[in-house]
Amino acid sequence: MPNAEIVSIGTELLLGDVLDTNSKFFASELARIGIDCFYRSTVGDNKDRIKSTLKVAFDRSDIVITSGGLGPTADDLTTECIAEMFGVPLQLDETILAEIEAMFAERKLTMPETNKKQAMRPKGADILPNENGTAPGIIWLVSSDILAANDISEPTRKRVVMTFPGVPSELIAMWTETARDYIIKNFLTGAIYSVELKHYGIGESALAEKYGHLLYGLSPSVAPYAGQGECRLRVAAKASTMEEARELVMPVVEQIRRDSGTLCYGQDDDNLETVVGRLLVTKGMTLSVAESCTGGLVSKRLTDVSGSSKYTKVNVVTYANEVKQSVLKVSKETLDKYGAVSAECAEEMAVGVRAFGQANIGLSITGIAGPDGGTAEKPIGTIFVGLAHERGCTVKKLELGSRVGRHDIRLRTSSAALNMVRLFLLSE
Amino acid sequence: MPNAEIVSIGTELLLGDVLDTNSKFFASELARIGIDCFYRSTVGDNKDRIKSTLKVAFDRSDIVITSGGLGPTADDLTTECIAEMFGVPLQLDETILAEIEAMFAERKLTMPETNKKQAMRPKGADILPNENGTAPGIIWLVSSDILAANDISEPTRKRVVMTFPGVPSELIAMWTETARDYIIKNFLTGAIYSVELKHYGIGESALAEKYGHLLYGLSPSVAPYAGQGECRLRVAAKASTMEEARELVMPVVEQIRRDSGTLCYGQDDDNLETVVGRLLVTKGMTLSVAESCTGGLVSKRLTDVSGSSKYTKVNVVTYANEVKQSVLKVSKETLDKYGAVSAECAEEMAVGVRAFGQANIGLSITGIAGPDGGTAEKPIGTIFVGLAHERGCTVKKLELGSRVGRHDIRLRTSSAALNMVRLFLLSE
Repeated sequence: MPNAEIVSIGTELLLGDVLDTNSKFFASELARIGIDCFYRSTVGDNKDRIKSTLKVAFDRSDIVITSGGLGPTADDLTTECIAEMFGVPLQLDETILAEIEAMFAERKLTMPETNKKQAMRPKGADILPNENGTAPGIIWLVSSDILAANDISEPTRKRVVMTFPGVPSELIAMWTETARDYIIKNFLTGAIYSVELKHYGIGESALAEKYGHLLYGLSPSVAPYAGQGECRLRVAAKASTMEEARELVMPVVEQIRRDSGTLCYGQDDDNLETVVGRLLVTKGMTLSVAESCTGGLVSKRLTDVSGSSKYTKVNVVTYANEVKQSVLKVSKETLDKYGAVSAECAEEMAVGVRAFGQANIGLSITGIAGPDGGTAEKPIGTIFVGLAHERGCTVKKLELGSRVGRHDIRLRTSSAALNMVRLFLLSE
Repeated sequence: MPNAEIVSIGTELLLGDVLDTNSKFFASELARIGIDCFYRSTVGDNKDRIKSTLKVAFDRSDIVITSGGLGPTADDLTTECIAEMFGVPLQLDETILAEIEAMFAERKLTMPETNKKQAMRPKGADILPNENGTAPGIIWLVSSDILAANDISEPTRKRVVMTFPGVPSELIAMWTETARDYIIKNFLTGAIYSVELKHYGIGESALAEKYGHLLYGLSPSVAPYAGQGECRLRVAAKASTMEEARELVMPVVEQIRRDSGTLCYGQDDDNLETVVGRLLVTKGMTLSVAESCTGGLVSKRLTDVSGSSKYTKVNVVTYANEVKQSVLKVSKETLDKYGAVSAECAEEMAVGVRAFGQANIGLSITGIAGPDGGTAEKPIGTIFVGLAHERGCTVKKLELGSRVGRHDIRLRTSSAALNMVRLFLLSE
């Protein structure tokens, strides 16, 4: 089986200025089409180090995918380094140059001289079109002569390098429109089928223990992954056709879904917000959210889903107590007696936002995300989530502790709240 | 100067299941203390590949920082691979074992046998304590004898390997409480000082052109980075003391801040939401936000800032037109005549939420984030941002296009809205 390596190029990655979402994208896409990715590497804008990283990548991988370093500035070195590494001259592509000039003309700008370098490519390389930016990439199926001349191991194996700019939207379009099909056509024979089963409410160890008898199988393979308060089980199999691979995977998937019950909330691209959204649509119900410590995060996640306007009419972020009173009709007595962070307040907020939004379900969140505001009685990480419906209201208390930090407290709270809505909808 | 390499271990990273925030954290932290990081590598849960990756890392880097692979399951291989790679036996640390057992006992659980491996460490390695989880790491200053015996280049150079679990909160605490100081004490002589100047409203090329005369200096070095609609200029210098490095950096920083004016909104840890927050506190003003297509993202970003309750009383997410009418008092005529996505509606929403929240500033966002809902007249990416204040209301139209996708449209819109508030507050 051919394997791929992802090489991210850019000093900003080594300085920790930006998160490498591009590598995650490629890794996930490669897994989907069944190409093994054994390594990812990151290197800064430095010629020698880029060249040595690419050399190592070519030596051990069949498909080398780079992102970054295609811009017009002096520290954009990717194309140049690939050409130099293989000792192949760069050539100006007149068509690309004309396109770049046209793009500038369209915006009524003159092309800076520096952008000319974006039209250069190593002799023999094809262009990987980029409809959304000035920098195209290359797809270069390097000949075995060149590989051999550069002491690359197994030079008769097919090797390709594909370069992408660092801008996520451009890179995604280039992959989807051109590069992915190129790999499928030129490198794939067998097929892989995989399903990821997403769990909420069970830890990685518990999940691994529950399915210990499956974890050491090879085909299908079953592996647990944890992250951000969720756990996933990936079930995957390789076979000569997709259909055969699927037949290996599906019985295990069905068995796990049966055994996990409501702990498994979905699979693959599902997340809590899309699952809650689908359930709301199916049940024909609407949801309104009143958030305090999560500050709009639950609303943001719910409305990340395209089409969420069907079940979202209004959500509110009520920080101030007077707003909890005026908008959500939380009573002054409750605030005085129990405080804004209390089961009582969460209940009145949920009931209140259900009325305010004229929704079937009212969801409320109040708590202490920190880093300030904790007390001995209500330490940081104390959260109350309320869920009001036609027949009443339930409140759940979370104790998340202060160590995970404000960001994680808010994220985990939002997941717990969404999961509470999911379980309620499943029980309806 | 010593340099570091970050090695992330875990098949989930190569499958694209999780985003590697740990590497970004380490990269950013290393940059702060002035340790060069030339490479980052990622490898899956495979013994041979982990060992070969670690070998390469040791060969070219002085400080090797690993994350992941310290868990109790069979695919957690980091400690084992480090010991095997150097041909050093693993030893059971009785103190650590007792601590792990105590941790389980505290939760009224019996320690599974598999957790025993978390108490193993290579002979000669020290423990890197982990207060928040079962898996401690190691700090191992590998002796030159061992380095030489394993053909590591320059074996007399000081080399250390530090291992961290993959859980972000645990890793951050271990770094902050122990590992960082260890590196500062054992590896640093000179000092680096750097300032990152954050810009909004100017592209990378334009910024590079504006400061072209500074970009090729070495000390201080000036480099532009772009991402998520913002641009940063990093000014950095190395010297024998922090004070000397600072003296090299600051005149350039001051000059850029002068030349950039309001295009530069802050530096280092600043982001648009913290800057807006600070300005609101300084001016003693409050802000209420009414969001439609951003669905709570602006509110979420504003309240990401600890202490935001000082200037945030209430924000609303109004998807439904009837809510725009009932809560924000947008007139039916406006909605009928111009539609919800219009300058007129944005204006009434801004004025309405200012009144609803009894705030000094009302901010509104209405638009089409896609992927559905675009028309020829109002294509996807058409957004109106309204800002109402004591003396009136201004509305800005954004045309972001559909290619960047729903997520980016929402993110860029939220930044544009926050920047509008910033510029307004600066002019007050």
